[in-house]
Amino acid sequence: MAGSTFGTIFRVTTWGESHGKGIGAVVDGVPAGIPISEESIQKYLDRRRPGQSRFTTQRNETDQVRILSGVFEGKTTGTPVALEVLNEDQRSRDYSEIAGYYRPGHADYTFDAKYGFRDYRGGGRSSGRETIGRVAAGAIAEKFLNMLGITILSYAKEIGGIRAETFEKDQIEKNAFRMPDELAARKVEEYLREKMAVCDSVGGIIECSVSGLPAGLGDPVFDKLDANLAKAMLSIGAVKGFEMGDGFGAAASCGSQNNDAFTVKNGEISKETNHAGGVLGGISDGSDLVMRVAVKPTASISRTQSTVKRDGTPVDVVIKGRHDPVIVPRAVVVVEAMAALVIADALLLNMGSRVDRIREFYGK
Amino acid sequence: MAGSTFGTIFRVTTWGESHGKGIGAVVDGVPAGIPISEESIQKYLDRRRPGQSRFTTQRNETDQVRILSGVFEGKTTGTPVALEVLNEDQRSRDYSEIAGYYRPGHADYTFDAKYGFRDYRGGGRSSGRETIGRVAAGAIAEKFLNMLGITILSYAKEIGGIRAETFEKDQIEKNAFRMPDELAARKVEEYLREKMAVCDSVGGIIECSVSGLPAGLGDPVFDKLDANLAKAMLSIGAVKGFEMGDGFGAAASCGSQNNDAFTVKNGEISKETNHAGGVLGGISDGSDLVMRVAVKPTASISRTQSTVKRDGTPVDVVIKGRHDPVIVPRAVVVVEAMAALVIADALLLNMGSRVDRIREFYGK
Amino acid sequence: MAGSTFGTIFRVTTWGESHGKGIGAVVDGVPAGIPISEESIQKYLDRRRPGQSRFTTQRNETDQVRILSGVFEGKTTGTPVALEVLNEDQRSRDYSEIAGYYRPGHADYTFDAKYGFRDYRGGGRSSGRETIGRVAAGAIAEKFLNMLGITILSYAKEIGGIRAETFEKDQIEKNAFRMPDELAARKVEEYLREKMAVCDSVGGIIECSVSGLPAGLGDPVFDKLDANLAKAMLSIGAVKGFEMGDGFGAAASCGSQNNDAFTVKNGEISKETNHAGGVLGGISDGSDLVMRVAVKPTASISRTQSTVKRDGTPVDVVIKGRHDPVIVPRAVVVVEAMAALVIADALLLNMGSRVDRIREFYGK
Amino acid sequence: MAGSTFGTIFRVTTWGESHGKGIGAVVDGVPAGIPISEESIQKYLDRRRPGQSRFTTQRNETDQVRILSGVFEGKTTGTPVALEVLNEDQRSRDYSEIAGYYRPGHADYTFDAKYGFRDYRGGGRSSGRETIGRVAAGAIAEKFLNMLGITILSYAKEIGGIRAETFEKDQIEKNAFRMPDELAARKVEEYLREKMAVCDSVGGIIECSVSGLPAGLGDPVFDKLDANLAKAMLSIGAVKGFEMGDGFGAAASCGSQNNDAFTVKNGEISKETNHAGGVLGGISDGSDLVMRVAVKPTASISRTQSTVKRDGTPVDVVIKGRHDPVIVPRAVVVVEAMAALVIADALLLNMGSRVDRIREFYGK
Repeated sequence: MAGSTFGTIFRVTTWGESHGKGIGAVVDGVPAGIPISEESIQKYLDRRRPGQSRFTTQRNETDQVRILSGVFEGKTTGTPVALEVLNEDQRSRDYSEIAGYYRPGHADYTFDAKYGFRDYRGGGRSSGRETIGRVAAGAIAEKFLNMLGITILSYAKEIGGIRAETFEKDQIEKNAFRMPDELAARKVEEYLREKMAVCDSVGGIIECSVSGLPAGLGDPVFDKLDANLAKAMLSIGAVKGFEMGDGFGAAASCGSQNNDAFTVKNGEISKETNHAGGVLGGISDGSDLVMRVAVKPTASISRTQSTVKRDGTPVDVVIKGRHDPVIVPRAVVVVEAMAALVIADALLLNMGSRVDRIREFYGK
Repeated sequence: MAGSTFGTIFRVTTWGESHGKGIGAVVDGVPAGIPISEESIQKYLDRRRPGQSRFTTQRNETDQVRILSGVFEGKTTGTPVALEVLNEDQRSRDYSEIAGYYRPGHADYTFDAKYGFRDYRGGGRSSGRETIGRVAAGAIAEKFLNMLGITILSYAKEIGGIRAETFEKDQIEKNAFRMPDELAARKVEEYLREKMAVCDSVGGIIECSVSGLPAGLGDPVFDKLDANLAKAMLSIGAVKGFEMGDGFGAAASCGSQNNDAFTVKNGEISKETNHAGGVLGGISDGSDLVMRVAVKPTASISRTQSTVKRDGTPVDVVIKGRHDPVIVPRAVVVVEAMAALVIADALLLNMGSRVDRIREFYGK
Repeated sequence: MAGSTFGTIFRVTTWGESHGKGIGAVVDGVPAGIPISEESIQKYLDRRRPGQSRFTTQRNETDQVRILSGVFEGKTTGTPVALEVLNEDQRSRDYSEIAGYYRPGHADYTFDAKYGFRDYRGGGRSSGRETIGRVAAGAIAEKFLNMLGITILSYAKEIGGIRAETFEKDQIEKNAFRMPDELAARKVEEYLREKMAVCDSVGGIIECSVSGLPAGLGDPVFDKLDANLAKAMLSIGAVKGFEMGDGFGAAASCGSQNNDAFTVKNGEISKETNHAGGVLGGISDGSDLVMRVAVKPTASISRTQSTVKRDGTPVDVVIKGRHDPVIVPRAVVVVEAMAALVIADALLLNMGSRVDRIREFYGK
Repeated sequence: MAGSTFGTIFRVTTWGESHGKGIGAVVDGVPAGIPISEESIQKYLDRRRPGQSRFTTQRNETDQVRILSGVFEGKTTGTPVALEVLNEDQRSRDYSEIAGYYRPGHADYTFDAKYGFRDYRGGGRSSGRETIGRVAAGAIAEKFLNMLGITILSYAKEIGGIRAETFEKDQIEKNAFRMPDELAARKVEEYLREKMAVCDSVGGIIECSVSGLPAGLGDPVFDKLDANLAKAMLSIGAVKGFEMGDGFGAAASCGSQNNDAFTVKNGEISKETNHAGGVLGGISDGSDLVMRVAVKPTASISRTQSTVKRDGTPVDVVIKGRHDPVIVPRAVVVVEAMAALVIADALLLNMGSRVDRIREFYGK
């Protein structure tokens, strides 16, 4: 299957390479009746688009999305929604040099090992442009979630080791780093200028929270909600870690601290704290889902690095091209999209969990 | 599907509850010709078994495995291998109390929310006994890996915040915590006694490394090798985090430090460092896979906790029963089993990646 | 995956060989709250059991089913239901002869070609006993369907070329062939005696109809309801053909005859005829599903046949053992079970087709 | 999932409606290194294209395919191949009439029942144009099969009850019906003129045979090779039946006639006859696969038919538009494509069946 499909019922299949004709996604299993337009999807792609600030690649792509199927009279029909973004700025520079060696931190070598050769232009299928399909599909998933009262918030929690200490929601879209803490964002800017001056790159941590989820989503064993979220996040290029709720912090905690006491709020069973991050036994508990994702520093840096050619000859290389010194701010929307896809699927899969509700659904 | 099946070709389906008749696994897609015996699987189960030390639950289970199908004349036949462990020590104590309220940190509430009722005896399907099926299936997967020269090593990296600073492989099975550092293990023992005295529990971090893997396993987009590993690990009860290679540490690093330079060792393309943890672009690069898993403190603690009854009435509870003060030492083998299952599947899926090799395979 | 799992949400995995320790099924995705007992499943197995008449194999198996998990206080819990039937009458005769050659019409040769060796005792995994798992799982599926007002009827339409010309429902369980036509059943009996006298076997056609289905089940393209039914039926050993509604008859018809006019009955949109067999565009239309399945003559016949040994040496063989001269009567319940499994899955998958109904389900 | 994806490793996802922007397919899991061009795929689409004779719809579509991804320097890269055909001749006539009632034999009613509304223009997703994606994907699969020495032949066996009695391979592409019997083709032409004169349509039977297959493809239980072929064929719109080898004929045969004796030909184990159609126990036996598919008469006929409006009001309708009086000749290539997809997948899935071959593959 080669792994370009994600999800069981709400299911996305993506295609496309950095310097091919375009990038696309086919979203199958979308419930009928969801209002969708190219404009509503474009808003998500614009958050992912290059050129948003001096801290993102200057590759010039407008990333205009087209809906090719599955929408009629402004609403989804239940049949697959095909989405397509054509590549525009495929610079015609010579890639023959890059074809010959293996860039450190990139998938060049592993593609050759697996497939025998590779589309070496701009990273091919392993380019960050691959995430366009995820974001476009995620926009549809998130619209669906919104109709059920579920909202997702995603932002940079930490960049280059500098952590957001305060949380102001309005700040997120006001600074170039999508951090909810203005002061932290300024420190990151300063730090990043230093690193860019020495042709280096940085990583960071993205936090994502989901509100309004019903209790009961996810399945008890292999398809735990957090297991599917973990897979979704680690499937994003450059992501190296995932944690749910207190995550690695829980590993150093005690049971008496880490357990969340149940209580009743507004007549609903709830928890007094949320160390668990909204899942118990792999099933949503009605609290906010809270997860964090570790993003490695951009692999493409324009300082000299040592590597080897395809035949093993050592060589010193300088990666040219237009690269983000940090991909966290643009990856924020990719994390949001992947979370939306997992939850949309979980909502549909959960509908068959109880025979009494199935009978009610079918009027029997 | 309710999520009791894992894997695409090499595929395990598990069943069973803590206090039902038993626990089992059906392993489908096992290649024919692998020597398997009940004894070889039992060794893995014995590492997971309760009662191994004073720091594990005293529930008395021998966990004897039976092979019911798929093995003939000592070798796998290619048909499903059914494995079964009967429950023996199902104490007949009254569970009616536990049935009525929601234990903090457990899946009681979420099961009720999802299914309308639950098998409340000993945690039902969400009991740690569920992992018996994973370990038995993983034993077959690991035997398969060994035949291909691949080995897995799993151990406690940190317990209760105390980290193994040295690595002595022989130590792992010598102390009750499966730590590769004797001194750290002693500190953990002391710390754990303190916590047990106050009826508390602790968590920890498990590290797992895989050696001898060919480059090329895993797929570029959604089915990245590390994405499937992340799902595998987060699907284990009590696991709250996963990281590959430097993981969350990479998020605070720079590209110039985090990139692993390619080089040639023994005539093979290799890497000078392994910050990546053995995957590039979701595909194995031939270096050791290195991953870490965060395990939360045991939720069952015998000190008073506040919670609610099914109807929302507040209640103070003390969880009785036989519980591990830390599950990390027993979870070490579960992590190993899940890693083996993911890699076995990746090995089979990868065989179709190149037409030249397929032609050679079929002699065309 | 080796193909021992069937279904997407309502999903069965089977295991076991003819002369191994037993046969079993794990049924995952069963909605919680369905009343299930070993007795209710046993009724289905008894219809499949050997030794029901002189026209079925005399192998002595009571085929007692045990439920090992997934049922609590008499109802399904939403977790996997493990079902097990132990093999009892595994005659200890010497199989070394059968091990050495390839029985015509059997899977001996293809198993060797695929796996390199095989469990040759009584057909191994390809024995008719494999269907025990299907029938046990199907019993749960059919109980679920009944709770939604859906019923299935399955019977022999034709045996040895003799067709049931009348339809009396009560007759089906009254004769040894499960034919709804007493006269036809008598003719079959006579014909079969003749064939048995000359050590030969016969085949037949099973018809299955499903009533009470809502319109809307199945998906438009690859997962058409009839496509999934076709796969389900052809997956039964000895089945060589499938048709829906008029089937092959439709191929010789005209559009003006074959199209079913829509009309209104009892205030519901309905069809005046049912040439389509209850599906239009792969989706159920609310009429009865009607399908037919072609079953080949039993391959095991005790007259001399020519074949080859494993090394290709020609050899004349006589298949000994206890075989059904026709498997149609026992396969009737297998067809019913497979139909139930397909429809149970379709019912669950269909719940997410419309956003308005999803919102209603979740109370939003 | 809504059923727009087919296959496990070699996997196609299709999208598109009759009167939307276009039709497409994403083919994932294609092995790297297969030479593919738009021209080679176009040849298959041209065989499916409308307007090939006076007996096919006169809708004017050139159906030019574009490859958007997954091919580099003329060869597949192992990443998904996206294929796209834009719709050109979407007549701007008013569809408001057709929107209001349910055409007999079409999916109008079932789409409304499932999704609440439908894209009524030209049949929407249930149009025959949906098969463009299958044929384009099948062209890649068939190229892959050819590289392994496997060839597929597909043709009309019977149209309007008139059966091809002789088999001349060269005839197939020489007559408008793709029949291998010139005389039969002439009779069909005459019969069809009669039917067209009275605004009626006819159906037929397509036969497909596959040569050069290794023994061992397919899995023993649910994923039998013939079960997957049955699903593939019934998933084609208008297909109502499937049979393998002697199929329904076997149901009226005897074991002594239907069993194929094993023998040795050219040093290879083979069968003297092929009643089985090339599969034993669901696994290919090395003989030609032979299957037949029943196609119903075209549902769209321009004579008066009675039906109902969406609200149930009876109405007499005449279906206007450009329709094939028989779709069999164009469906021949769709059957071929689906067979190719099933076999390509089976070839890849089979590679992991034996540990000795896996060790050889990985050089261990």
